[in-house]
Amino acid sequence: MRRISDSTVRRLAAYLRFLEHAEAEGRVTISSGELARLGGTTSAQVRKDLSFFGSFGKRGLGYSVPALASKIGEILGLQRAHRVVLVGAGNMGGALAQYRGFHQRGFHISMIFDQDPKKVGVRWNGLQVRDVRQLESDLRKDPIDIAIVATPAEAAQQVVDKLVQAGVKAILNFAPVRLSVPPDVEVKTVNMALELETLSYALANR
Amino acid sequence: MRRISDSTVRRLAAYLRFLEHAEAEGRVTISSGELARLGGTTSAQVRKDLSFFGSFGKRGLGYSVPALASKIGEILGLQRAHRVVLVGAGNMGGALAQYRGFHQRGFHISMIFDQDPKKVGVRWNGLQVRDVRQLESDLRKDPIDIAIVATPAEAAQQVVDKLVQAGVKAILNFAPVRLSVPPDVEVKTVNMALELETLSYALANR
Repeated sequence: MRRISDSTVRRLAAYLRFLEHAEAEGRVTISSGELARLGGTTSAQVRKDLSFFGSFGKRGLGYSVPALASKIGEILGLQRAHRVVLVGAGNMGGALAQYRGFHQRGFHISMIFDQDPKKVGVRWNGLQVRDVRQLESDLRKDPIDIAIVATPAEAAQQVVDKLVQAGVKAILNFAPVRLSVPPDVEVKTVNMALELETLSYALANR
Repeated sequence: MRRISDSTVRRLAAYLRFLEHAEAEGRVTISSGELARLGGTTSAQVRKDLSFFGSFGKRGLGYSVPALASKIGEILGLQRAHRVVLVGAGNMGGALAQYRGFHQRGFHISMIFDQDPKKVGVRWNGLQVRDVRQLESDLRKDPIDIAIVATPAEAAQQVVDKLVQAGVKAILNFAPVRLSVPPDVEVKTVNMALELETLSYALANR
């Protein structure tokens, strides 16, 4: 299978949500037109996105909701649970630790680290906040799949260096800073301001 | 100018960040190849994205950094400041209220609302948290451009209905729920789990 683009992956993840809603409503099939409408794209785009993975739809009948949901889940690697470490027990970390959407999708936060002695040892959602100085040794003993970095901008690169040293290959970054990682490590930076900019564009071009 | 797609808008916002970094480093020109490398896309895509707005680059010389930054800022409607209301003074709201990236981009949180009597009246970043029951009347007196919804999922639709009633046309939603709005209102939902899913894809397809 050839490597698909980041925007295609994002659309697939969005289609999966719509399929799960449809499944919960007892629907059996869904058309490319309906997926397109829900996802704010075109039927042609939906068919193109799904054609990467072979033929699913039947002309005139649409896609089988459970079959397509299961196939997209498999493509995204969601058929297994992921262990997640959270670094940064501030406001953003707290919001993420409580975010219900992660657990539903099989992303389980299994460790939380911070550098603040006042936070270390405190229990959060049943987990004890650990000292960031133990990050590398703890992760070596007990490897995780994905790290979430929710530290202040100044601390983020240093934390990421430790995560990389400890063998982490996938990092979700909430700190407003560009991070350097080796080519075999995947980093996604969630940029809150960028989302507001797309709204600013919409307001300016009404 | 024809309507450009959401993914193009997101790439433009990303290019703007790279241009500002380049400008801060005293750079005068930048090539489509460099913008492509920084943005994880292709030179052809960069040239296509920028061609929407007429001709900027000179073959062999690249784009003028300040001219392109200013043009993209104008396209995104960032030449003016935006007044933002935040609804939901929980962990996520707290993280957003303190997020430095907003202010840098001219997004100024000027009101915060919550429904919890224990939070109403408390000062946050120099703003007093207001009672959500006053949302409509306060916004009518003092209109804002963009609303950020950071409430629990159950409360989000009700808050959005009030925002729409008060004339808000652009909403950034952090609640893990799909929202209904009239066609003239733009909603973006930030889905944290979706970001983890793109990392899951990257891990599954290494």
